[in-house]
Amino acid sequence: MIYFTDSEIDQLITEDLPYFDLTSLSVKLGSKVARISFTTRHSTVLCGTEEVIRIFEKFHIQPTLLSVSGEYIDEGIKFLEGEGLAKNIHSIWRVTANLMEFSSGIATRMRELVTLAQAVNKDISVVTTRKSQPFTKKLSLKAIQTGGGNAHRLGLSDTVLIFNNHIKFIGGLDMMISKLPQIAKRAAGRSITVEVQNSEDALKIAGAQLDGIQLDKIPAGELKKLVPKIRKINPSLRIAATGSISASNIQEFADTGVDIIVTSFPYYGRPADFQVNIEPVFDL
Amino acid sequence: MIYFTDSEIDQLITEDLPYFDLTSLSVKLGSKVARISFTTRHSTVLCGTEEVIRIFEKFHIQPTLLSVSGEYIDEGIKFLEGEGLAKNIHSIWRVTANLMEFSSGIATRMRELVTLAQAVNKDISVVTTRKSQPFTKKLSLKAIQTGGGNAHRLGLSDTVLIFNNHIKFIGGLDMMISKLPQIAKRAAGRSITVEVQNSEDALKIAGAQLDGIQLDKIPAGELKKLVPKIRKINPSLRIAATGSISASNIQEFADTGVDIIVTSFPYYGRPADFQVNIEPVFDL
Amino acid sequence: MIYFTDSEIDQLITEDLPYFDLTSLSVKLGSKVARISFTTRHSTVLCGTEEVIRIFEKFHIQPTLLSVSGEYIDEGIKFLEGEGLAKNIHSIWRVTANLMEFSSGIATRMRELVTLAQAVNKDISVVTTRKSQPFTKKLSLKAIQTGGGNAHRLGLSDTVLIFNNHIKFIGGLDMMISKLPQIAKRAAGRSITVEVQNSEDALKIAGAQLDGIQLDKIPAGELKKLVPKIRKINPSLRIAATGSISASNIQEFADTGVDIIVTSFPYYGRPADFQVNIEPVFDL
Amino acid sequence: MIYFTDSEIDQLITEDLPYFDLTSLSVKLGSKVARISFTTRHSTVLCGTEEVIRIFEKFHIQPTLLSVSGEYIDEGIKFLEGEGLAKNIHSIWRVTANLMEFSSGIATRMRELVTLAQAVNKDISVVTTRKSQPFTKKLSLKAIQTGGGNAHRLGLSDTVLIFNNHIKFIGGLDMMISKLPQIAKRAAGRSITVEVQNSEDALKIAGAQLDGIQLDKIPAGELKKLVPKIRKINPSLRIAATGSISASNIQEFADTGVDIIVTSFPYYGRPADFQVNIEPVFDL
Amino acid sequence: MIYFTDSEIDQLITEDLPYFDLTSLSVKLGSKVARISFTTRHSTVLCGTEEVIRIFEKFHIQPTLLSVSGEYIDEGIKFLEGEGLAKNIHSIWRVTANLMEFSSGIATRMRELVTLAQAVNKDISVVTTRKSQPFTKKLSLKAIQTGGGNAHRLGLSDTVLIFNNHIKFIGGLDMMISKLPQIAKRAAGRSITVEVQNSEDALKIAGAQLDGIQLDKIPAGELKKLVPKIRKINPSLRIAATGSISASNIQEFADTGVDIIVTSFPYYGRPADFQVNIEPVFDL
Amino acid sequence: MIYFTDSEIDQLITEDLPYFDLTSLSVKLGSKVARISFTTRHSTVLCGTEEVIRIFEKFHIQPTLLSVSGEYIDEGIKFLEGEGLAKNIHSIWRVTANLMEFSSGIATRMRELVTLAQAVNKDISVVTTRKSQPFTKKLSLKAIQTGGGNAHRLGLSDTVLIFNNHIKFIGGLDMMISKLPQIAKRAAGRSITVEVQNSEDALKIAGAQLDGIQLDKIPAGELKKLVPKIRKINPSLRIAATGSISASNIQEFADTGVDIIVTSFPYYGRPADFQVNIEPVFDL
Repeated sequence: MIYFTDSEIDQLITEDLPYFDLTSLSVKLGSKVARISFTTRHSTVLCGTEEVIRIFEKFHIQPTLLSVSGEYIDEGIKFLEGEGLAKNIHSIWRVTANLMEFSSGIATRMRELVTLAQAVNKDISVVTTRKSQPFTKKLSLKAIQTGGGNAHRLGLSDTVLIFNNHIKFIGGLDMMISKLPQIAKRAAGRSITVEVQNSEDALKIAGAQLDGIQLDKIPAGELKKLVPKIRKINPSLRIAATGSISASNIQEFADTGVDIIVTSFPYYGRPADFQVNIEPVFDL
Repeated sequence: MIYFTDSEIDQLITEDLPYFDLTSLSVKLGSKVARISFTTRHSTVLCGTEEVIRIFEKFHIQPTLLSVSGEYIDEGIKFLEGEGLAKNIHSIWRVTANLMEFSSGIATRMRELVTLAQAVNKDISVVTTRKSQPFTKKLSLKAIQTGGGNAHRLGLSDTVLIFNNHIKFIGGLDMMISKLPQIAKRAAGRSITVEVQNSEDALKIAGAQLDGIQLDKIPAGELKKLVPKIRKINPSLRIAATGSISASNIQEFADTGVDIIVTSFPYYGRPADFQVNIEPVFDL
Repeated sequence: MIYFTDSEIDQLITEDLPYFDLTSLSVKLGSKVARISFTTRHSTVLCGTEEVIRIFEKFHIQPTLLSVSGEYIDEGIKFLEGEGLAKNIHSIWRVTANLMEFSSGIATRMRELVTLAQAVNKDISVVTTRKSQPFTKKLSLKAIQTGGGNAHRLGLSDTVLIFNNHIKFIGGLDMMISKLPQIAKRAAGRSITVEVQNSEDALKIAGAQLDGIQLDKIPAGELKKLVPKIRKINPSLRIAATGSISASNIQEFADTGVDIIVTSFPYYGRPADFQVNIEPVFDL
Repeated sequence: MIYFTDSEIDQLITEDLPYFDLTSLSVKLGSKVARISFTTRHSTVLCGTEEVIRIFEKFHIQPTLLSVSGEYIDEGIKFLEGEGLAKNIHSIWRVTANLMEFSSGIATRMRELVTLAQAVNKDISVVTTRKSQPFTKKLSLKAIQTGGGNAHRLGLSDTVLIFNNHIKFIGGLDMMISKLPQIAKRAAGRSITVEVQNSEDALKIAGAQLDGIQLDKIPAGELKKLVPKIRKINPSLRIAATGSISASNIQEFADTGVDIIVTSFPYYGRPADFQVNIEPVFDL
Repeated sequence: MIYFTDSEIDQLITEDLPYFDLTSLSVKLGSKVARISFTTRHSTVLCGTEEVIRIFEKFHIQPTLLSVSGEYIDEGIKFLEGEGLAKNIHSIWRVTANLMEFSSGIATRMRELVTLAQAVNKDISVVTTRKSQPFTKKLSLKAIQTGGGNAHRLGLSDTVLIFNNHIKFIGGLDMMISKLPQIAKRAAGRSITVEVQNSEDALKIAGAQLDGIQLDKIPAGELKKLVPKIRKINPSLRIAATGSISASNIQEFADTGVDIIVTSFPYYGRPADFQVNIEPVFDL
Repeated sequence: MIYFTDSEIDQLITEDLPYFDLTSLSVKLGSKVARISFTTRHSTVLCGTEEVIRIFEKFHIQPTLLSVSGEYIDEGIKFLEGEGLAKNIHSIWRVTANLMEFSSGIATRMRELVTLAQAVNKDISVVTTRKSQPFTKKLSLKAIQTGGGNAHRLGLSDTVLIFNNHIKFIGGLDMMISKLPQIAKRAAGRSITVEVQNSEDALKIAGAQLDGIQLDKIPAGELKKLVPKIRKINPSLRIAATGSISASNIQEFADTGVDIIVTSFPYYGRPADFQVNIEPVFDL
């Protein structure tokens, strides 16, 4: 669903294979045929098999078992298998495992967050910040979607999100509020959200010409009281909570009645762990 | 020290800034001038400031305070500061923070490992596996070096490392040993290492025509007895230990007398956390 | 404001200069110094000088007069001038003129639309469709912004816009309306707009869980009656009009009370026309 | 016939699809299958289907009806059709339409010029200037060829074309003429053309060591008298006319007896207009 | 004069420096400052210093002595020198030497050919075939020009050159001749050359509607008789000789009266040989 | 075995085919079908057919005879043949021939060196320096491997090789020796080699903490006496000889007992020479 260009697939490959696989060359695998299989070591929301298939194709490896991104795979299940020349399979073993382990790790954490949050508030959205690891945005975004979320913003160009760092340049909160009609005009129809750090500011801007309000680092208890007050002032305002929200506290925040949870949590943590087996099949 | 191409720097920028910073455009920062500063929130081995400076240059931001990769920065210290147009500074705020937080996180974990290991065995090397996160190899490698380590292998092309997955294709361990002269000939002078999972196999290959032996998932206690036996058979063999070695157990492994510890530990975990301040300076 | 990568600037240059300027080489301009100047042939909203300056830098041409994107330049005004080696100036004459003429043409048409529309309805936004000319999206987008507009959508990834071509796949309009809560959940906080082609459908969806409604090819007269009815049903719905709206009819549409005009008009038409002079300065 | 690299095809796709088609994802098209068809809204010289097929392939869309670049398609004719997953078809609907509309517009205008000109002078060539829209040179060139023309020059590197802007740097027209042997030597066999703006200069250079003469902005009436005089002086000189030549006046210029018409006319104007239909086929 | 993009310069660097200079890192050059100098080991037509300067800039190396491409440098002359951090200088030592040695080798051989040929026939052009080494076309072309020649064709797109391999597809030589008017029409003003392998065919096509004739592998003696006969038939035809022409026989071919010599000779052979010295300057 | 990215293959193609094959277009090959065949003109170690096949695929040319890289082909043997549209075959004729001729030339020279050297010393390795021609490293490396060798170093990042140019920055040879433990620690397990130019220095460093010693420009006669002395001091040291070693003298050096010969010889010299035939097959 996420479109990777051919150059991006090639970049992944050449990160690990700048020229050749010296080991396969040196041990001389010749025309031997191998089967590679990937098996979960713990329950996992799978991600990245579509890209692995594209790597397989470049190395003439036929998939013989294939699961798709988004499947929930229990521990100990073989979910992907391919056959091809042993030298080719050895050449892409690590890069394919790495790609799936990284993205499945994120997808699994994302799914966990969504499941926890929607258990408390079935209509809530869980979205991620722009703090994906450098160079991994597209792959991270695929994993986030696979896990049932989305990015809050794809980058700086698609929506307006006014932080405190902007407000100080335009004369403070009151001045910013008075400028919102002009800001909206310049945004030309794009949605506008303002982030605040306390209830007082939240209530001050709730009635302004805004599409959304983002509440940063306000404790869940306080938030639970604040949200209805905001709703009362502006029922159509999209309310987001953010600030160190993780699997351990997302239910408290989901329970506050906000529409959206914004978090960086899924980006970090260990990759999924897959067992990779390479077995001889027969000689061509 | 690591050379990033201009396209790589641009790729980082455009991940977050595909077209423009809609917020800065909409709030109309005009010709306002700002100062951005970065301050540690915990003690950190700094990494990535050289690349941030290149991003600064592209946005005409003058650095007014600059620390270099590899410096150890205590908690609460401002280590980087730049001045330029507010709209430019807002455009690169997140991408510069992200880049340094990601790489400093790795560098800090790497330095921790090296410090722990060398406290026990001052001549030991700590190196990392090829399991860096997809698309981040160059940046991860910079962080690894900044932290005092190196990559065990840069990729598949530079050295020979024979895993069990290779051995089964060439007729088992004994057959592999008998083929080592031919393997060495094909490797044409490149160093050759074999990985084994138990002491018996280790002792079997210790006398073979090898440069290194890698001992995978052998407990530290067993390793401590094994290493002298290997040394006795072949004093010039480079001995590496690998398999789930982290900050919590590296000293046990360092104490076994191996020459090299191979680990993926620094790649994972949370990024460093920096406080970013953007303040108005004056209007041009 | 739009960030062009260095590779994009180089791509522009090499489109015209794959290797060298054979004419300059053959007539042997040697170390002669020249001044290049650009003068409007008609009143123009200028665009693209920032990128021209970057091309100048690559060819060591010093700008001696510089206007910025967004300036309105009367007919017959010299707005950009640079000095450098004659051979370098001849090498980039066409590419710099082309770049500014193309983007200034779009910016001028965009400004015209915005001025016309806001003369009738000062709060209206004028935005463009995704029908920019192939390969020119970033440059076209710069011109659109320079002219006072924005893109309605940056591409397929940032917002949800449901066309008739989607509706037929999900069981028709009523079924689509019933699915909107699920759609919103999958969109995870992104704004959702539905396009309809007649008043009946418009009124049917006006009360649905939507952020915007896009009215395609409905005549301005009919639209003027429709808009208040929609507003009555849902005052916070963002209403857009689209379908062959150009400079000749935008005021009729602006007068209907819609919030947004969506058009492809600025993308087409002739480039701006600039007179380019290259004069000898002196020999180095 | 024009070779587009895979990266160029991918660049087209990602201009519109940086990550995913959020609408298709949100309305959940699942495994639905669709047929996309393209139908002319006016008679058109078709261009770009070969590139569309390459985009189809990347999204596993099977073409079920295919016309090739260069075919003349009457109004109301379906000329291209493909079947594939509905989500894939929606993802590339706009980009494929855009590509063909842009290039078919140019091809149609080019064919019109060629037809008009050759009706008057069957041996005349119609070629285009270097003023293609930025970043579109390759695609524009494909369209120009498809329409029966060629580029006058592919860029600055392939032939020598001496403009007035060069002549002033080498001491004026007479001096330039005297330097032509040296210029020819440096051009090493490449063809050399000089552009002049009046009959006097034209006659002055007609006898010089040149391959071509380009007559800029000389009225057709004057040109008709001038051409035989030039032919008399140098029968093998290639004579080109240029300067605001369009469909409305090309026959006057073709009638002057020149060998070549040089124009920017086909690059500008509206794209061709195709009706795009996407219909459900069945569920897989 | 040849424009290299920044990516091309970076590609050269990263061919040798994929990540870092491990030797400089390991021997710890710290803040030591060095001077690098390049000295000819034999007389050389210098090429590539402009690109070396761009590499210097990327590594903050100041040139302190600089010669330009095209200078003839005697044996034993220091022609380029730069100062910077020792670790940076070591990082680019080989890549800068390689670049200049490769291109200066070609430039020197090209200059030799031109000098030899023009000693016999002062108006003759010497140009090269399309057989440059893979991936080196731009750099080879720079060297060819620096040596006083040009490429016969930049590639397949700029001129028409009909080989025997084409003629057999269009019905033989006579049929091809009869089709020349149509071919010329499709070439739309581009120059047309036909290659033949014997005098009979040469005389047969000499009167056809052609711009050039290329005589392949006809011995110089035969050629000397053939050229005047061709001139008599068509005085304006451009006559080229090709086929294993090198420094050892070019004068015989130049003496035949042809206008152009086409050869691959300069592409092959050893690079120029430069002595590179790196000396400590002082510590910063 | 060497992995070329799709962009690298496309770069090769577009070097020669920036837009289209003007000759094929002009002579109008239409739907004619052709067979291209490649035949050796001298005995050759073949290289590059795998990449040619990828070019064939992009132009829909079916291989009907295929040899693989590494095969030794006698003079006059047809080794590759493909069928496809004549216009496509003409478009890639030169680029495919060039690619194979360049790389087969290197492979053939490399095989010659290896055969000569191993005739004298069956266990010796022959490897190449980093002096491959600019931009050709990957292709050259493929050829080197195909010929039975390897690169001594892939670039600056994979091993430590200390030259005299480094030694002068760290206080001379003795000081360098004393620093070797620290150097080894920073190299973190990578192999360390030192190059010296005379026997005295060689003996001085033979006992140091090194993996290899490289003996530069020491005459074979002297070397033969030196090698046993080095072996006696340190039997596990890898001994390499370098400095103007070519096919004419490699046996003398192989006979000295060194482990490795390092040479640039295969990179230079004429490409292999293949006869290319293109024949009509039939009309589609």
